Amino acid sequence: MRTSDGNCVAQLTRLDSNRLFETLEQASRIGRWRETGVRRLALDDADRAMRDRFCGWCVESGLDVGVDRVGNVFARRDGTADEAPVMIGSHLDTQVAGGRYDGALGVLAGLEIVRMLDEHAIATRRPIVIANWSNEEGARFQPPMLGSSAYAGAIEPADALAATDRDGTTFGDELRRIGYNGDLPIPGSPPGAYFEFHIEQGDVLDRRGLDLGIVTSAYPSRGTVIGFRGETAHAGATPMRRRHDALVGAAELVTALDALVSDGGDQVRATVPQFDVWPNRPGIVAGEATVTVDVRHADAAGLEQLCERFDEIRDDIARRHGLAMTVERSWQFGVGVSFDEPLAAVARRAAADLKVTAIDMPSTAGHDAYALAAIAPTLILFAPCLKGITHNEHEDVDPDRVLRAADVLARVVLETAQR
Amino acid sequence: MRTSDGNCVAQLTRLDSNRLFETLEQASRIGRWRETGVRRLALDDADRAMRDRFCGWCVESGLDVGVDRVGNVFARRDGTADEAPVMIGSHLDTQVAGGRYDGALGVLAGLEIVRMLDEHAIATRRPIVIANWSNEEGARFQPPMLGSSAYAGAIEPADALAATDRDGTTFGDELRRIGYNGDLPIPGSPPGAYFEFHIEQGDVLDRRGLDLGIVTSAYPSRGTVIGFRGETAHAGATPMRRRHDALVGAAELVTALDALVSDGGDQVRATVPQFDVWPNRPGIVAGEATVTVDVRHADAAGLEQLCERFDEIRDDIARRHGLAMTVERSWQFGVGVSFDEPLAAVARRAAADLKVTAIDMPSTAGHDAYALAAIAPTLILFAPCLKGITHNEHEDVDPDRVLRAADVLARVVLETAQR
Repeated sequence: MRTSDGNCVAQLTRLDSNRLFETLEQASRIGRWRETGVRRLALDDADRAMRDRFCGWCVESGLDVGVDRVGNVFARRDGTADEAPVMIGSHLDTQVAGGRYDGALGVLAGLEIVRMLDEHAIATRRPIVIANWSNEEGARFQPPMLGSSAYAGAIEPADALAATDRDGTTFGDELRRIGYNGDLPIPGSPPGAYFEFHIEQGDVLDRRGLDLGIVTSAYPSRGTVIGFRGETAHAGATPMRRRHDALVGAAELVTALDALVSDGGDQVRATVPQFDVWPNRPGIVAGEATVTVDVRHADAAGLEQLCERFDEIRDDIARRHGLAMTVERSWQFGVGVSFDEPLAAVARRAAADLKVTAIDMPSTAGHDAYALAAIAPTLILFAPCLKGITHNEHEDVDPDRVLRAADVLARVVLETAQR
Repeated sequence: MRTSDGNCVAQLTRLDSNRLFETLEQASRIGRWRETGVRRLALDDADRAMRDRFCGWCVESGLDVGVDRVGNVFARRDGTADEAPVMIGSHLDTQVAGGRYDGALGVLAGLEIVRMLDEHAIATRRPIVIANWSNEEGARFQPPMLGSSAYAGAIEPADALAATDRDGTTFGDELRRIGYNGDLPIPGSPPGAYFEFHIEQGDVLDRRGLDLGIVTSAYPSRGTVIGFRGETAHAGATPMRRRHDALVGAAELVTALDALVSDGGDQVRATVPQFDVWPNRPGIVAGEATVTVDVRHADAAGLEQLCERFDEIRDDIARRHGLAMTVERSWQFGVGVSFDEPLAAVARRAAADLKVTAIDMPSTAGHDAYALAAIAPTLILFAPCLKGITHNEHEDVDPDRVLRAADVLARVVLETAQR
């Protein structure tokens, strides 16, 4: 085996497109939702079934599978040296209305790399570990990226296990229920390098006809939960001037937030993903409204400025409507994250060698890599997704272009694992 | 017994304040919510317990108790002639965050009138029937005023029984479960006259220091359920310009509706009592939002005009945000309702005799009397409630003033029952 020959390595590291997409197709049938989508909420029965299937595939490939205290799954292919492993990770949980590539692509591309190495009988110096992180989406438990954050020491394991879903079920109880309460320690050992391969989830690559995004920065993101408390009242008998309608205040907040970012261009995102009203019944003016606000900006100073302006608007709304207010910082990520420039340089070179069109770009989404970047040299590679549609059952990709991006991943992983 | 003597009748028809408020206090302990409120949703366990207690009280007073096919309860005191009865009705169900007087006052004042007649051994020419109507509030089943509407023939009994709550449980199943699926026919027989005694739920009487409102008109009211469907998307990766955020559209609708009626003064009410978002999870742009809009106006033409303007705003919002839309008329009441002027005249005269300060006024709330007005001479009398606070656990009254209003009710009922 001529592993020293560049062309030969290039050839060897080409992945099996059919097998990768067949594996993705099989995964997409677990927790199928609507015709083409997937719903695997963290630690639910579909997530368990997906974890079981993934572990089965790993064992078939001769990998050692282990689980840590917060349910992160690690599948390890030994190296020839006793060095910190190269880790390829992402997540197998999805949004409540999710697509089949968001997360799963990264985990299963890792598996495909290992299968390719086995086929070509390529030994690596460093071990290779495929990681499936628990509760990346945050669709069931808060905060998102719970498993990777705990692994990297950013969240106490006890806090992670105590996270509760809407029904009051704890993360820890659900881990035990599905049998993924492992014994590997939290926080975990820093890998030698961490790679995350993910669909872009935006439309930059697709629109520009590019195959690969090399992520060099992250949008700082902040989640805040704002509670307004007014007074329930009769929807007919209570004159408008006498009302303290929590829903009206909350709706005004949504409208104002949307207006606030309307001319911010691509630098800014503002979303209200959750909006809850009480008592939410006919005939009665709302007494309480709870609004989750998700704000992201290309740079931290811009985010800070945006949030300050928003806070003023929020306080003014509460004052004008006579509403009591609570404000709770729910999550923050992407602040001060830096990716590994030498790894990015390897990716750029590999893309050039393989004639894969690539650009440097920021990530606007949250990723497990943000937590890992604090403890290891980290790189995120983006594959294009059609029209940027994601968190939606119509999420789709062009397999050929995804494969070209994955070939770069394989090359970078292999080069790093031989160091 | 000198029933021909005016002063003596006045004295006889004075109600027992202590007993009335002791009965109300006992009722308020059934389904107690927070410190001072009540939660008895139609046909739930608390509603059943309240019905049972009410029936018990009626039987103790020697009344004949019957139940019709939609669960309306009737307690009858025979008259000396075979004439259509005088009916005194209201409801024992409450809002999810209800007070202790809304509804219960009207039913239990009826009971107190019967007790007073018994104490003074006063026989009436017409029978007197106390009615407890099913599901007045509409807090559990739609439409509100279900029982009275079915009684008056405005709703088919099959449709009433098929009404479902949020959990998919039908009205008919719940009636059977709590044992209030009676056999009296629906629609029911028109009474000779119908009286409803209710707290005002506004602050007009309280603010002006008056004891009694004689209701001479109803605010026409309309309920509409508007569904927006956009596209789920990633809260970070999806640029603002590419979104079809159903929540943003729905929030804009709430804000616009509130602005639309802000200078309409006391002639108009607009409320969004229900606001539901899907999938309502972190990280994902809302794909669907459903908004219930409750609009009321002092006159039917004003309501029509307001709704037309609102429909334009609604359509514009859907267009601008690229949202698909469904519009469903959910309920309408108070349109074309007319109360009985001769009965109102009797009430004015009785108030003058008893030195009870009274005014004519409109009703802004929905009442079972609206349905009854279509089949019988009908009168609503309002008692003052403190600061107009209602559909709220802090709903409260001044017992002395309520009693003065109730004395007028008793006098009018007695006069009508002797005709």
